[in-house]
Amino acid sequence: MAKKPNKLKARLPRGFVDRSADDIRATDEMISKIQAVYEQYGFDPVETPAFEYTDCLGKFLPDTDRPNAGVFSVQDEDEQWMSLRYDLTAPLARHVSENINGIQLPYRTYRAGWVFRNEKPGPGRFRQFMQFDADTVGAPGVQADAEMCMMMADTMEALGIPRGQYVIRVNNRKVLDGVLESIGLGGEENDGHRLTVLRAIDKLDKFGIDGVRLLLGEGRKDESGDFTKGAALEASAIDTIADFVSGTGSLENDGVTELNTMAAMFNACGYADDRIKIDPSVVRGLEYYTGPVYEAELLFDVTNEKGEVVQFGSVGGGGRYDGLVKRFTGRDVPATGFSIGVSRLMTALKNLGKLGRSEVVAPVLVTVMDGDVDALGRYQKMVQELRGAGIRAEMYQGNWKKFGNQLKYADRRNCPIAIIQGSDEREAGDLQIKDLIEGKRLSEEITDNITWRESRPAQITIKEADLVETVRGILDGQADDRRRQNEG
Amino acid sequence: MAKKPNKLKARLPRGFVDRSADDIRATDEMISKIQAVYEQYGFDPVETPAFEYTDCLGKFLPDTDRPNAGVFSVQDEDEQWMSLRYDLTAPLARHVSENINGIQLPYRTYRAGWVFRNEKPGPGRFRQFMQFDADTVGAPGVQADAEMCMMMADTMEALGIPRGQYVIRVNNRKVLDGVLESIGLGGEENDGHRLTVLRAIDKLDKFGIDGVRLLLGEGRKDESGDFTKGAALEASAIDTIADFVSGTGSLENDGVTELNTMAAMFNACGYADDRIKIDPSVVRGLEYYTGPVYEAELLFDVTNEKGEVVQFGSVGGGGRYDGLVKRFTGRDVPATGFSIGVSRLMTALKNLGKLGRSEVVAPVLVTVMDGDVDALGRYQKMVQELRGAGIRAEMYQGNWKKFGNQLKYADRRNCPIAIIQGSDEREAGDLQIKDLIEGKRLSEEITDNITWRESRPAQITIKEADLVETVRGILDGQADDRRRQNEG
Repeated sequence: MAKKPNKLKARLPRGFVDRSADDIRATDEMISKIQAVYEQYGFDPVETPAFEYTDCLGKFLPDTDRPNAGVFSVQDEDEQWMSLRYDLTAPLARHVSENINGIQLPYRTYRAGWVFRNEKPGPGRFRQFMQFDADTVGAPGVQADAEMCMMMADTMEALGIPRGQYVIRVNNRKVLDGVLESIGLGGEENDGHRLTVLRAIDKLDKFGIDGVRLLLGEGRKDESGDFTKGAALEASAIDTIADFVSGTGSLENDGVTELNTMAAMFNACGYADDRIKIDPSVVRGLEYYTGPVYEAELLFDVTNEKGEVVQFGSVGGGGRYDGLVKRFTGRDVPATGFSIGVSRLMTALKNLGKLGRSEVVAPVLVTVMDGDVDALGRYQKMVQELRGAGIRAEMYQGNWKKFGNQLKYADRRNCPIAIIQGSDEREAGDLQIKDLIEGKRLSEEITDNITWRESRPAQITIKEADLVETVRGILDGQADDRRRQNEG
Repeated sequence: MAKKPNKLKARLPRGFVDRSADDIRATDEMISKIQAVYEQYGFDPVETPAFEYTDCLGKFLPDTDRPNAGVFSVQDEDEQWMSLRYDLTAPLARHVSENINGIQLPYRTYRAGWVFRNEKPGPGRFRQFMQFDADTVGAPGVQADAEMCMMMADTMEALGIPRGQYVIRVNNRKVLDGVLESIGLGGEENDGHRLTVLRAIDKLDKFGIDGVRLLLGEGRKDESGDFTKGAALEASAIDTIADFVSGTGSLENDGVTELNTMAAMFNACGYADDRIKIDPSVVRGLEYYTGPVYEAELLFDVTNEKGEVVQFGSVGGGGRYDGLVKRFTGRDVPATGFSIGVSRLMTALKNLGKLGRSEVVAPVLVTVMDGDVDALGRYQKMVQELRGAGIRAEMYQGNWKKFGNQLKYADRRNCPIAIIQGSDEREAGDLQIKDLIEGKRLSEEITDNITWRESRPAQITIKEADLVETVRGILDGQADDRRRQNEG
């Protein structure tokens, strides 16, 4: 061990991050709220592993022009290629297909899990991130898509996002397909061209209608000078599409009928335009969608990395993918589902002040004044007594010889109480109890809205037997203060 | 999409598994109980991503003789090698080293996460599995190791494992090192040979003292005829080690002193031999341990895949790894921690009947008799009303035209209630409510301990406005029955 000290540089691979206690607690809180909604809707958890055979995953990622199609792949011992999943939908389709004889359809499941993209990382763009999906497999009617939209709306509200600050936008791929057909882009032979057009439309949010027009035509140069080649449509075709996504075009087809059915269901259940809205500009980038597509968008403003004020935007979405299970089974197994981007939604909720407000009190610190076995045993016993009584506590585990470091540790960690017992106290069976919150308050001479109460003593001496009772009393007093301060 | 139907075979890569609703719920329940103990002990969550640079992970896996050292690796764009983590300890050491200036030591953290081993899968041996770790970094004294052992014992009891059915076994690498030195295996030049000896000792559980003797000597042939080459020690050296691990040898060194200190702490805190036990045969396979090592073992009998009755055995363990952070920083940052094998422990708890008993009631099913937009809207509205009242509910989302399939679905899914509304009822504003549990009971003429109560009607007709109230009443009645049955 450590033959060459200090040679190795500790560093994370680009595009990956560590998660702090605050982030983990906030994420867990958020996930359990989302989960409660999905459970209420009759969905059950089911999970798949990180790896799939590459051919089972298929190539449905937007950036198909990149080599490796944006996935991390390794070769197994028998030379079959495996890839880390890039979403949770393709693996679900594999899971259903593999177990189709044992599964009762419709199959309503949810899962939160890490997915991986082998892409160039950027600001807010990670190579490992968490998605939280819900899917109904074996559901032919758009009533299932309508239910998904309502569930997304209910999820937003369960997370505390006020009505008016989010909207679920709905469209149908068949509607767009009709428009594309009308300008001569129907049929399999136009698959590639159609996808370029869809991705141009998908940028409406980002670049506005003029930007989309450029991308439908010759192309668009961004601020940095980078040029994106366009779909090279003729002017009249560009007009048709622009009219349509602006909502001024008109069309009758299956897609429109399906959207009307969905609208009627939203209506019947009291989900008005301020919660779920039909919007012809919604596309969703993934190739496997075959019918309704939907997206959850947050409407409040944030300042982006360039200092511009923009709407927060999409936090998740999905759609109908009737072909994914058929790839394996040859049977029609129609399905619909959506995915929430967990980190992105968590960022939004933090912006809104809706997360991380649940109270986690740091542990009571039993300090160490003597390092002999007897003393250590006695300190540890105090800690175990406190824990046994349901009080979060720890003994100082660093180098105990510098007592200043112990108090610095308690301060940095925000410990509420420190327990001190030197040899004299030990002989007398006594303990010193320091109320660190009160101590800080007194030393800083805070004149806040709780100074009206008489100050508690910041340090007291008690009998060892009174440890648990005294500590509990002080913690209760501190909790009261916090409550009063939050209310004040 | 689906250009070549039925060509692709849906299959999971070997060594990976899907997780069912039951397994996920049981795991979540278990993890939250473990987490509560760790929090009580003053640990906070911190997580690292799935990938690390390969050189940061180091090669500490037992099977160093295999190519790739048992990890999954990919090359990044700049040709640096990255690997999926094979445990949670090496990434924690990287995390601490990278952030050493911002971290307040001692650093007490926990994390549950997936780890990956590129190994040959076997029964109960997966290539992706979950570990749940706790570590104190920056803790030089064995009081930190002692605390870990107590925390493992408390965790076992918090999970409902009765005292006497588990034991935490403790040893110290320095003790073994002393023994190995006494037979001429000290020094770096014997690293490889020493590891072979350690792994032989680690097999005491599995093969008994005679098996270990063979592995220390010429080698051992197993039942299938496979031969494992031994450490080729002389007879006297084998005797010394065998005496030692059987507890009949004697020795004085730093390791023994440390074990005595730990024993004194266990004693002071009331952890007797039936919970934590010093045991010279504990080794732990990983190369990075430098001091105390400890292991949580379950003592109840299970039948293994060969039909033999054996003790359940290890569900986790750990030890002191003083060199891991130093690899990066050059600074001494002593640390100790342990890892619980989540799936293995869950299997054990299921065997003991300690998990999965929390009640998840399947959703109320609103059936579909008519598929026109008005009818669908009305069904969906009923579902939303039930959900709004906190009742788990769903509308049938499969092909509604075969009503028999809807009732079969309700039965397979174990739905408690079905709601039915045909066009006649719709006109009259009525609903049929089927109590599916009562229906099953009546049809099976069950004469169990709840037949003494008068049977409820299995189907009733109510007004639409009474939906929520009626459903709630029936669910409450069913819950009462379950309670009575569990008590009876």
